[in-house]
Amino acid sequence: MVKEIVIIGSGAAGMTAASSARRTDPRAKITVFTEDTDVAYSLCVIPWAVEGKVAWENIVMHTPEYYREKKNIEIFTRTRVDSVDDTAKTVSAAGKTYVYDSLVIAAGGRVFIPPINGTDLDGVFIVRTLQDGKDIQSYLKNVRAVAVCGAGVIGLEMALAFSALGKEVTVIEMLDHIIPRTADKDMADPIQKHLESRGIKFVLNAPVQSVNGTGKVSGVTAGDKEYPCEMVIFATGVRANTDMPKALGFDIGQLGGVIVSQSLQPYKKGRLVPDIYIAGDMIQCVSAAAAGPAMSQLGSSAVRQGNVAGINASGGKALFGPVASPWVRVMGEKEIAGTGLSFGSASWYGIDAVCGKASGLTRARYYPGATDMTVKVLADSASHRLIGAQMIAGEGATGRINWLTSAIISGTTAEDFLVRSENAYCPPTSMVKDTVISAVEDLCKKLKDE
Amino acid sequence: MVKEIVIIGSGAAGMTAASSARRTDPRAKITVFTEDTDVAYSLCVIPWAVEGKVAWENIVMHTPEYYREKKNIEIFTRTRVDSVDDTAKTVSAAGKTYVYDSLVIAAGGRVFIPPINGTDLDGVFIVRTLQDGKDIQSYLKNVRAVAVCGAGVIGLEMALAFSALGKEVTVIEMLDHIIPRTADKDMADPIQKHLESRGIKFVLNAPVQSVNGTGKVSGVTAGDKEYPCEMVIFATGVRANTDMPKALGFDIGQLGGVIVSQSLQPYKKGRLVPDIYIAGDMIQCVSAAAAGPAMSQLGSSAVRQGNVAGINASGGKALFGPVASPWVRVMGEKEIAGTGLSFGSASWYGIDAVCGKASGLTRARYYPGATDMTVKVLADSASHRLIGAQMIAGEGATGRINWLTSAIISGTTAEDFLVRSENAYCPPTSMVKDTVISAVEDLCKKLKDE
Repeated sequence: MVKEIVIIGSGAAGMTAASSARRTDPRAKITVFTEDTDVAYSLCVIPWAVEGKVAWENIVMHTPEYYREKKNIEIFTRTRVDSVDDTAKTVSAAGKTYVYDSLVIAAGGRVFIPPINGTDLDGVFIVRTLQDGKDIQSYLKNVRAVAVCGAGVIGLEMALAFSALGKEVTVIEMLDHIIPRTADKDMADPIQKHLESRGIKFVLNAPVQSVNGTGKVSGVTAGDKEYPCEMVIFATGVRANTDMPKALGFDIGQLGGVIVSQSLQPYKKGRLVPDIYIAGDMIQCVSAAAAGPAMSQLGSSAVRQGNVAGINASGGKALFGPVASPWVRVMGEKEIAGTGLSFGSASWYGIDAVCGKASGLTRARYYPGATDMTVKVLADSASHRLIGAQMIAGEGATGRINWLTSAIISGTTAEDFLVRSENAYCPPTSMVKDTVISAVEDLCKKLKDE
Repeated sequence: MVKEIVIIGSGAAGMTAASSARRTDPRAKITVFTEDTDVAYSLCVIPWAVEGKVAWENIVMHTPEYYREKKNIEIFTRTRVDSVDDTAKTVSAAGKTYVYDSLVIAAGGRVFIPPINGTDLDGVFIVRTLQDGKDIQSYLKNVRAVAVCGAGVIGLEMALAFSALGKEVTVIEMLDHIIPRTADKDMADPIQKHLESRGIKFVLNAPVQSVNGTGKVSGVTAGDKEYPCEMVIFATGVRANTDMPKALGFDIGQLGGVIVSQSLQPYKKGRLVPDIYIAGDMIQCVSAAAAGPAMSQLGSSAVRQGNVAGINASGGKALFGPVASPWVRVMGEKEIAGTGLSFGSASWYGIDAVCGKASGLTRARYYPGATDMTVKVLADSASHRLIGAQMIAGEGATGRINWLTSAIISGTTAEDFLVRSENAYCPPTSMVKDTVISAVEDLCKKLKDE
């Protein structure tokens, strides 16, 4: 009997689920419903596309036609799923009912927009779909100044793009430093300075109070001061889109995402729900660095979750483990990356964090092109386990943050890291003792002095 | 009472031991004996200095005077230690006797030169000291063609330098592929092709039989064929310099290095020797990837070992763990890196290795500047633990190989790597699913099909 797999959502999680289900079961009938117009594109690229560094037509990897013809996956675009009946095992969409054997829900997240006046004016945008990006790009033509609300990584990348296009850019952040959710102030401040050197202005400790204008944006008020501008971008965080899980009675976690098993199945009053898998920005994960829940709303996490959901939905076996959620961003000439907990997030888990820090170079001291690198590592003062890291470097942050992620995931203590960790070395790509190791040395000293 | 610490050798291990001892005990008397003229330089940079990419004067980080004045470390250069009396706890050098409380022996390794005719001719060089590098550079002026014997990484880097200087370069290798000790043929061959595209010639499966010439080099014979040249470089591997340990009756391991404890102390007939620590190319390590010994003659390992020896010699506590020995080299536009076991070395341990492989990009597909990346990962077919990895990439290999090293060191299985490993992602520095993870996916498939 041919298995019928229905997938709701065509983002990174949904489309990965579809492809992984196809690889696992070559015969299954696979149907995807999405409200989006395009499928299989990377949200993360929007800032670069708005800047013109990447062409729009290069972003979309495959069309719905490609999926139909090459992968035998049917995609209904611009089609909303109105309801799911998990007893009858059907979904209703566009007036029709579709039966499923397995259902993957990957309905993503929604940009949180603060409940203030003026967010419906012309010139207010969010950054969520390809169309948002295109709309921003065409609206930009008549814009001199932009206010970006939210100094998370997406806000900053948009700010960089606008700045590169010659716009006057002001980033407005409610908290006291940029990238507040995942970076500590001491690591965020140098990036802020770097962005200021490129002409971007920052207003911190200032919640957005209103968007002003008649018909279209003329300014934004934050911290009781008005900043004139013709465009406002809300990059104020993503909330799990839990409408459908709530309608189905699925358990929602403390952080607002759907609680799932390692197989990515939801629960209903504490009981595992069969034949339904949830992936992407909707779910609450388990932290790899602390006992407790964690959100992991990253493209890379969505792909991994989609893969697990797709394999399980099609009869394979896969698990999704605890998350450290490593991330990396390029901000002008600097890369900033992080993994696991920051000081701020550690305190949420009741963890007393101790940190070590070191500065060095990305190549041997004498080798041309060496750039600065600063690494911060955190351990919890009770077990001495590594729980987080952040770094700023001119190059090479990605692999190094994955390295530290691996150490966090495997429960390595700071002291054991020093005894057992090694780094590859050659003059054009590293120092003989990598700055990551120097930072852990500093951490061990701090732990000893505690 | 002031502790007297004597260190034999001023390479990466010896000088790191001196500095770490000073940090651990600010009052100790620290004395270094070395046959070398310069101290505190990186051997790894010699090829770049010969090419002229790095200035000789930038290589030496500190002079003996600096160590005396700033760190209170006395260095006797061009001074051979004639003998050690480990009962009286003294060393004899230049006709004088010095007492020690702790002794660090870091006498390094020696380039192995095959016992053939002509190796004493003018124009024959090895690459071991700064002076070797300078001698090569000045001799090069009258050289049209160079033969490099040995296609390990140092031989290849020298070949690249000579080629960049317009010399005709032939690399001669006894075995059937380049980088034979640490890379497998399928990963080495693309690098060979890349170097051939830069004009370097290769002669494989050809042991060097003689260096020919009268007074000075006129050619080299390998595989029964003569290759005319005016210079011959022997980069035919490094053997542990065990003269002194053997004279002291220390136990020597199966791979020719001194057997040491995790504290880096040697053994005499199976009994730990007190107050003596050995570091650097002389010692035999323990493999992190297989039960058995391993050599780890890398600059990065020497620094880590020197640190442990210096801390322990001065009354601190440090251990040196098992080694995966990650390495990376830049070969023209390609980086090649490896860690743990190759197929070849796995078989030495009696391990039946299974491999997975994947190709991808170093950035998002659509992002400018993306380069190819190929990753090979190995697991043992019994436990499914990751035991080794190799990669070729246009950029970013160093951090990624450290990441895989961390997974090997912590005993991760291929399957668990997939469940629990995460990669940081942004379009300018990685694909959303890193090629490392794709390679492990392929490995898991192969392990399943076994």
